[in-house]
Amino acid sequence: MRRWSFTKGHGTENDFVVLLDRDAALHIGPAEVRYLCDRRAGLGADGLLRAVAVRHMQDEVGGPGWDGDGSTWFMDYRNADGSVAEMCGNGLRVFARFLFDADLASGPTVAIATRAGMQQATALSDGRIRVSMGPVTVGAAEATVTVSTADGETFAALPADVGNPHAVSFVDDPARLDLHAAPRYPAETFPDGVNLEFVRELGPRHLQLRVHERGVGETRSCGTGTVAAAAASRVHTADTTPLPVTYRVDVPGGSVEVELADDQAYLTGPAVLVASGQVTVPEEG
Amino acid sequence: MRRWSFTKGHGTENDFVVLLDRDAALHIGPAEVRYLCDRRAGLGADGLLRAVAVRHMQDEVGGPGWDGDGSTWFMDYRNADGSVAEMCGNGLRVFARFLFDADLASGPTVAIATRAGMQQATALSDGRIRVSMGPVTVGAAEATVTVSTADGETFAALPADVGNPHAVSFVDDPARLDLHAAPRYPAETFPDGVNLEFVRELGPRHLQLRVHERGVGETRSCGTGTVAAAAASRVHTADTTPLPVTYRVDVPGGSVEVELADDQAYLTGPAVLVASGQVTVPEEG
Repeated sequence: MRRWSFTKGHGTENDFVVLLDRDAALHIGPAEVRYLCDRRAGLGADGLLRAVAVRHMQDEVGGPGWDGDGSTWFMDYRNADGSVAEMCGNGLRVFARFLFDADLASGPTVAIATRAGMQQATALSDGRIRVSMGPVTVGAAEATVTVSTADGETFAALPADVGNPHAVSFVDDPARLDLHAAPRYPAETFPDGVNLEFVRELGPRHLQLRVHERGVGETRSCGTGTVAAAAASRVHTADTTPLPVTYRVDVPGGSVEVELADDQAYLTGPAVLVASGQVTVPEEG
Repeated sequence: MRRWSFTKGHGTENDFVVLLDRDAALHIGPAEVRYLCDRRAGLGADGLLRAVAVRHMQDEVGGPGWDGDGSTWFMDYRNADGSVAEMCGNGLRVFARFLFDADLASGPTVAIATRAGMQQATALSDGRIRVSMGPVTVGAAEATVTVSTADGETFAALPADVGNPHAVSFVDDPARLDLHAAPRYPAETFPDGVNLEFVRELGPRHLQLRVHERGVGETRSCGTGTVAAAAASRVHTADTTPLPVTYRVDVPGGSVEVELADDQAYLTGPAVLVASGQVTVPEEG
């Protein structure tokens, strides 16, 4: 049995196990991730965030922006099923909170390397954390597709890209939708699957959102989904207010702010560390 | 913010947060229980086990058997929804494992006070823990009731009592049952609700079980449910082998042994401590 130090935290109830592994000494394969994220036999989380010095992960840093400093923190994000993932807006906030609280980074802003390129996280004076989310693009009106929920109801959806694929539908009442099973979408448009957002426009730049995440099901929150919803709402309402503009997006697990700027989007929201300690990890095999 | 020491563990994937509170100094109301058991905003568990000296809980010890020693450990068990519960077989094993591992009890047997009376827990040399479960009674054949699953399939069920109410149905293939919603049962027979077991008899005294727990839904394991299933199977198969007899019961979260003796039942199974550390608990209000 191995004993690893861990921290557990969440951002709008999207929750993570965080492991500090500066020198890439831990052996964390898919089996270890699945165990740690198992909500009954392990600690339980939507995903794992491993903090490792980027010098050990140089081949995995995506996109531009890394200045070559090997001591920069790399966020090695894994989904609960053990698969490797590129980026996670809620995870990035929790990761930054962990670095700040553990004195592994001095604030208020820290640069974090990810598989989706360099990101920035800033601790705000109100306790929230603001992170960069990269560019977001929304398809033109003619790109609109049709999605249908498990009970057969159909909706028009605007495709959006936040590094991962989204389709955003505007609905009168997200609460009454049947999302207990995966909605259907045109597979030819989204060959790798798609995250589906169902959005109610509550007022000017104030959105309510339910999200069905690709390969997961309905979740309490999805950072890239909130960005996709804000960008799609700007198109949907033909809002020509000059950028930057800020949206409030209410998700089942809380509330975040999405800022759409000229070059990219930013996500601001809570990041809470709940517990820390030692976890027992069975040896493989 | 309060910082409490915690341990997390599970028995056949029925999982618990354990708090040591010998002198009843922690204020743990329903809000604290719900927070600690919240699987996304808190630590996450099916229930909370508080270890407190029975001198502080004398009014709550149920049944006979307590010898008046105020230092005896009391298992204060709460459901994830914050409600108080009497007993939990899987929880009792995890509670005993915690006491042994933390040197709060010397083995191999420890007496544990509960709201369902004094129980005994014994650490076996194979690593499992054996706990007393109190008496179990099964209704006569004429007491058979009818239950129906969400898709309308109906089954005969034998009522059983393990301190809490059960109804046990024998089925060909538990795996294909639709338990995503609560099965229906005769409310006049079970005015306080009922735990529903669906049992396949795999061989002599070898059972496979799915369980829908009262007020919870389908779970990975239910200790009293395994005892009810074994006792009902003895009636169902008209097995007259003199007691004690031992059943193997496979549940979704693992496998346990149920021993039916003259005076009461015993449950033997794994008890695993996964993690320990400090958890942050928000102040009330």
